[in-house]
Amino acid sequence: MAEELLKLGIPTGSLQNATIELFSKAGFHISDLERSYSPTIDDEQIQPICLRAQEMSRYIEDGALDAGITGYDWIMENNSDVELVSELAYSKATSRPARWVLAVPDESKVTKPQDLRGCIIATELVNVTKKYFADKNIDVRVEFSWGATEVKARLVNAIVELTETGTSLLANNLRIIDTVITSTTRLIANKQAWQDKFKREKIENISILLNAAINAGSTVGLKMNIKKADLKSILKVLPAEKSPTISNLANSDYAAVEVIIEDKIERSLVPALKRAGASGIITYPLNKVIH
Amino acid sequence: MAEELLKLGIPTGSLQNATIELFSKAGFHISDLERSYSPTIDDEQIQPICLRAQEMSRYIEDGALDAGITGYDWIMENNSDVELVSELAYSKATSRPARWVLAVPDESKVTKPQDLRGCIIATELVNVTKKYFADKNIDVRVEFSWGATEVKARLVNAIVELTETGTSLLANNLRIIDTVITSTTRLIANKQAWQDKFKREKIENISILLNAAINAGSTVGLKMNIKKADLKSILKVLPAEKSPTISNLANSDYAAVEVIIEDKIERSLVPALKRAGASGIITYPLNKVIH
Amino acid sequence: MAEELLKLGIPTGSLQNATIELFSKAGFHISDLERSYSPTIDDEQIQPICLRAQEMSRYIEDGALDAGITGYDWIMENNSDVELVSELAYSKATSRPARWVLAVPDESKVTKPQDLRGCIIATELVNVTKKYFADKNIDVRVEFSWGATEVKARLVNAIVELTETGTSLLANNLRIIDTVITSTTRLIANKQAWQDKFKREKIENISILLNAAINAGSTVGLKMNIKKADLKSILKVLPAEKSPTISNLANSDYAAVEVIIEDKIERSLVPALKRAGASGIITYPLNKVIH
Amino acid sequence: MAEELLKLGIPTGSLQNATIELFSKAGFHISDLERSYSPTIDDEQIQPICLRAQEMSRYIEDGALDAGITGYDWIMENNSDVELVSELAYSKATSRPARWVLAVPDESKVTKPQDLRGCIIATELVNVTKKYFADKNIDVRVEFSWGATEVKARLVNAIVELTETGTSLLANNLRIIDTVITSTTRLIANKQAWQDKFKREKIENISILLNAAINAGSTVGLKMNIKKADLKSILKVLPAEKSPTISNLANSDYAAVEVIIEDKIERSLVPALKRAGASGIITYPLNKVIH
Amino acid sequence: MAEELLKLGIPTGSLQNATIELFSKAGFHISDLERSYSPTIDDEQIQPICLRAQEMSRYIEDGALDAGITGYDWIMENNSDVELVSELAYSKATSRPARWVLAVPDESKVTKPQDLRGCIIATELVNVTKKYFADKNIDVRVEFSWGATEVKARLVNAIVELTETGTSLLANNLRIIDTVITSTTRLIANKQAWQDKFKREKIENISILLNAAINAGSTVGLKMNIKKADLKSILKVLPAEKSPTISNLANSDYAAVEVIIEDKIERSLVPALKRAGASGIITYPLNKVIH
Amino acid sequence: MAEELLKLGIPTGSLQNATIELFSKAGFHISDLERSYSPTIDDEQIQPICLRAQEMSRYIEDGALDAGITGYDWIMENNSDVELVSELAYSKATSRPARWVLAVPDESKVTKPQDLRGCIIATELVNVTKKYFADKNIDVRVEFSWGATEVKARLVNAIVELTETGTSLLANNLRIIDTVITSTTRLIANKQAWQDKFKREKIENISILLNAAINAGSTVGLKMNIKKADLKSILKVLPAEKSPTISNLANSDYAAVEVIIEDKIERSLVPALKRAGASGIITYPLNKVIH
Repeated sequence: MAEELLKLGIPTGSLQNATIELFSKAGFHISDLERSYSPTIDDEQIQPICLRAQEMSRYIEDGALDAGITGYDWIMENNSDVELVSELAYSKATSRPARWVLAVPDESKVTKPQDLRGCIIATELVNVTKKYFADKNIDVRVEFSWGATEVKARLVNAIVELTETGTSLLANNLRIIDTVITSTTRLIANKQAWQDKFKREKIENISILLNAAINAGSTVGLKMNIKKADLKSILKVLPAEKSPTISNLANSDYAAVEVIIEDKIERSLVPALKRAGASGIITYPLNKVIH
Repeated sequence: MAEELLKLGIPTGSLQNATIELFSKAGFHISDLERSYSPTIDDEQIQPICLRAQEMSRYIEDGALDAGITGYDWIMENNSDVELVSELAYSKATSRPARWVLAVPDESKVTKPQDLRGCIIATELVNVTKKYFADKNIDVRVEFSWGATEVKARLVNAIVELTETGTSLLANNLRIIDTVITSTTRLIANKQAWQDKFKREKIENISILLNAAINAGSTVGLKMNIKKADLKSILKVLPAEKSPTISNLANSDYAAVEVIIEDKIERSLVPALKRAGASGIITYPLNKVIH
Repeated sequence: MAEELLKLGIPTGSLQNATIELFSKAGFHISDLERSYSPTIDDEQIQPICLRAQEMSRYIEDGALDAGITGYDWIMENNSDVELVSELAYSKATSRPARWVLAVPDESKVTKPQDLRGCIIATELVNVTKKYFADKNIDVRVEFSWGATEVKARLVNAIVELTETGTSLLANNLRIIDTVITSTTRLIANKQAWQDKFKREKIENISILLNAAINAGSTVGLKMNIKKADLKSILKVLPAEKSPTISNLANSDYAAVEVIIEDKIERSLVPALKRAGASGIITYPLNKVIH
Repeated sequence: MAEELLKLGIPTGSLQNATIELFSKAGFHISDLERSYSPTIDDEQIQPICLRAQEMSRYIEDGALDAGITGYDWIMENNSDVELVSELAYSKATSRPARWVLAVPDESKVTKPQDLRGCIIATELVNVTKKYFADKNIDVRVEFSWGATEVKARLVNAIVELTETGTSLLANNLRIIDTVITSTTRLIANKQAWQDKFKREKIENISILLNAAINAGSTVGLKMNIKKADLKSILKVLPAEKSPTISNLANSDYAAVEVIIEDKIERSLVPALKRAGASGIITYPLNKVIH
Repeated sequence: MAEELLKLGIPTGSLQNATIELFSKAGFHISDLERSYSPTIDDEQIQPICLRAQEMSRYIEDGALDAGITGYDWIMENNSDVELVSELAYSKATSRPARWVLAVPDESKVTKPQDLRGCIIATELVNVTKKYFADKNIDVRVEFSWGATEVKARLVNAIVELTETGTSLLANNLRIIDTVITSTTRLIANKQAWQDKFKREKIENISILLNAAINAGSTVGLKMNIKKADLKSILKVLPAEKSPTISNLANSDYAAVEVIIEDKIERSLVPALKRAGASGIITYPLNKVIH
Repeated sequence: MAEELLKLGIPTGSLQNATIELFSKAGFHISDLERSYSPTIDDEQIQPICLRAQEMSRYIEDGALDAGITGYDWIMENNSDVELVSELAYSKATSRPARWVLAVPDESKVTKPQDLRGCIIATELVNVTKKYFADKNIDVRVEFSWGATEVKARLVNAIVELTETGTSLLANNLRIIDTVITSTTRLIANKQAWQDKFKREKIENISILLNAAINAGSTVGLKMNIKKADLKSILKVLPAEKSPTISNLANSDYAAVEVIIEDKIERSLVPALKRAGASGIITYPLNKVIH
């Protein structure tokens, strides 16, 4: 039945593979992507539809889709009136937010936005860029650029371009002079769909499961055996906010301690625990973590 | 010694990669597949031999192989007298059984098998198709087709072709009018080998481990902490047939609950458990599950 | 600060992918390999530098690098005075040590090293080969060969070539007549760096984590439920040196037993445990194992 | 010197490979395309710059480039005031002009542009589409679509999309209801550059050589020996507008006839010539043809 | 109109690329092969249809196709009553005819067909093989093998397998004991279609043009200037059967000589001509050669 | 017979594809390269053997090979006493000779070879580099580098590295301070083989045909029709050293002029000829050109 179906936008392009993989970790298997408009998902209540991140929010605002995943940058560019359900801290290369920066050739005399008065700026993000300069009362001409904007920096006066690591700007000998907007990936919903009981619960479930999978990606389970006499000293080594599970063992002098830790601290924690007297230390991967 | 060696047929073609991966999950690592006839396996009691699924059962019936993996369809096609050891619920794309269907061009006037009296049917599965029509007392000519049978549907009157999802038939504008046979993957054995103590135990072990790996693929471990007071209400949320492991913790008001669940229910169960008061919910992957 | 930075050599070539993957399992993510000299690692105290395994030890001896990963063979070839920190039991294809063998064409009359007196030997490992013959007082001419040495065996009298599985020698119809040196992968350090407190601890941590990841690759966690009455008989099935974690369960007739086992014995152990009365047997993957 | 350098725009994307190949046939070798902005060409008076066809004409109009290759469609979309130097009859798949068509889903009730009054049209070619509807006094909303427009036809009411062969529209079950614009590839120039003696001659030379290479692609040389007595009858078989070169031979009863013909007629002409008495017929490839 | 359309079978598989390329050289461009059943050709009177070589002759005999390209081996296997129009001397790797050979494992005691009495033979070419043994009055069981027959030679007693160079048999350590059939590629036609005026002329034209393109592949044009005084001595160097075109030049002491030669003799002829006094020798490629 | 066989070294690595292609243009088809030591050639008097360019001259000097193709740089590095038969002006990317340059990091204070006294130089070309510095009486330590030498420039003091275009040095921010040696590709021969009548003629033929193919690559044939009255003025447009072939035509007012020109001048010559009154200008490709 129509009221039992959620039309969900999946971003194509650079986010697509990461999104498919995230859904897979969250328990939803998307296939038949070669039929790129409407792939298959193993949940009868969801109809996935593939669209570019750039135009996703427009179709969600119009109600052609109930919900979808896109970047905060493109929501702003389209000035879309949609429900921001949750932030999804995954991305192509890193977990840092992406930045759209104002950049000029290394050899340019421009050092601040004000120096660009009367100039031409090339960017894919025309409206956000116009607003950025208008807010500063700087009059510029903003022209739409069809991708590969870095290479055009020397044909116009400046560009506004997306960067995660800055590598591509560096390679083109460009210099950043300001950040125009930072952006992370978002799960968004149509405002009417958000008032519908079935759709809202479905969107919330997807949000919980995607975030649980994201959490799991940066977390591991750690188990060790410790002498009960060492318990206090070893617990001090663990991050303060963690409350470990302590199980009794057959041999009552020992206890099994289990804790969920971030993988970033694993490489300093594991040797520290060993030195503190823990034995049989193992770590194991997790599928989902709900704090 | 010869009596301590099991000659095991591995199917090439569309099943090969999935089979190699399944053996890997079961703990057997097959390599050197580029020498395609006789790859290497890290078990000295097994000699793997690669053959097409289509002819596997014939070599097992003859005793050239002791056991092997193939589809039920080809066992029937070859009319092979072999031991059906177990069904292996894995396949290329889905876990649904594959179907061989009788199909005609969309524009054909044929709507039921009886309309094909006196016609030509092209198929890779000649004997099964002949038997299907003979059982219905419909006289047809069945011709062997060397693959890509869909494209020939307009050169003959109808085809009998394998389909998992129906996509290829749709793309060729064909219409299904009946199912001729459904098929799943099987581990089969030569009847004499099955009477040999060493070989039978070896085949049974392979069967157990392959199925344990298949089970693990659709199962996850779930752990959570609960207040002992909530225990009953939370246990009700769990599937009735599951008996969870409940461990005592240092803090005697709480217990750690651990249960193995199917990943299909994970996406509804996890939010429900959270609402019921569970905390620190994690799920983790499994390698093998033996019920 | 300079004294807080470890310059770490990563081998390029056949070891590179396996090394990157091992570091990843150990918790260090190396990226930007396309800029092949100096990739990025997510640890600010490490600067990774990519070099061929063949020249790694020379740069470590000279102090251009503090530590690095290379083969024992090339340490010997360069006659480098470095600290051998630990052996890393991973490699491209197998966990067997690689061998440099003295080989001749099948049709050659040579059957022992002594038959090569006055002959020409082609090899990439010139110094080790010279020492091998000098130790035996056999006078030969050793010529440097730029890779693909097998194909030159018929242009000279014999070759000394690396082999893991012997496949390439076989394919070239060569016959092995002796082993010149066996080699495994090593983590090595510059002797001065090894005396530096910060650097030594950092190198040791890397060594612990890499080995913990290697161990985890051949190990799984196993859990099962057993009747307390069966405890003794089941413990006998487990490898003698393993001390399992035994947890009390809510149902006091049963206990949960957990043990870390090598994956090699998993395929015989699992059926044996089942027969001995264990139920709900699962195995799960591990990230790190520190004995 | 600046006045001796022509800045020439090369289109990236679907036209890029065909353009590089065409320049190569014309005698200009473009390399280092991996540095995608400014590749190398073996003519010191030309500086090639790679840009998308979509924005080429804008940079040429502004004078950032002197000349370039792009489609007529994008010149119109950008409403660029540039010199149309020549038409280049090559393209990706065929030599037919590309069409931008107005299309609707097969199941739509729309049969003519007028039925779309008040509807949403998605297209990459926003301005041309707006003008198309304005010229017909039909009020519609035209929205920019970022590629893969076919898949959006069911999210809006109609699309305007490029098609060479119609295959992609067919595959998406869309129905063409009108042609909005047809387009071929053009060599265009900045109006001021066109007045510069050096630049104009350089652009004209490029135009001549590119067209000579295009002509050669559909033309072959044909030679045959004929009896002088047969000359008249054989000349009748040749296309009327062709004037063949007739050389005297040592044997004065025979003549060698040579003619340049379109390869399209080769397959009917060759057998006809043979039947008319020609012998030793050969055809050979051409690099350039200037009529 | 139907009577003006030729349904032409194009072989898929190992012959497909070579066939497409040959048609291209002959002046027919086949595209859209991804829609594998019915690609596009730039001749409105031809409808190409892709089928495996194995079943081509069956559909031509039945009249589902008018003509097609396949191997002599499969025409014999299907025992098809078709018109053999011409032999096409092209193939995948070489211009040698392919052979189906009877082969046994190196270690087998079988040395002649008669030693196989009562044995099992695996082959893709079942009927030809049965006839081969029946003609020799040797009773064997011939079983159909689905490709990769070499690897089965040790599961049965002998195989009959296709070989062009023998490499694959050698790699599998098999020994050839006889040739069962040799085969070349053929253009064949349906017997009724061959009686139809339009179809026969169309098929003959295709035959002429394909063969002209094959001839051109092994032929080059050669031109040189010679002193008239040297004419006789130089003509002696040319192959006797060639009659060169001799043109008068402006300088009446010299003549231009042009001749079409096989590329095989080019490498000995060119130096010989030079020594005999020819100057300005060039050779150039040909598209088509009709003797 | 042994005395009728030429053992010919073909360089592997970066030159291999270009060499195979050059032989193909020269009329020798080399195949079976996957069996990389000893491929097949369609000339029974030649046995090709694949070796790295680096060691080619050593095996030719020793007589293991009769002749071969390698770079002048490696002949010098090996200090090989061989016959230099001819220079072959082809290479991977350009027709410029390759240079081995002395380079330092951009930020280094070194500006001339003398500044490197006492320093370490990394290079693949150890002996040539040693000689270069010895000739200048500069004492340095030269260390062998296994490829990718650019990346090591910051681990030692300077490098000597091969460059064709300088791109890789630029990308690594290195500065060239001198050229150590320039090198082109050579056909070389063993000194004894060069005295053997059969071998010398065979090597000379190969040299002639390879160079004829190289010449053809940069040359085209040009034909045009001119009024006899224009003959003188048009001949002035042609390069002075060219003597065109002028044929009489049936129409005695016109002549056909044919000339072989370098493709580099084609792009200026063709428009000039047109302006001078030539008509029906065509250019066509050549296979071989022997001046």
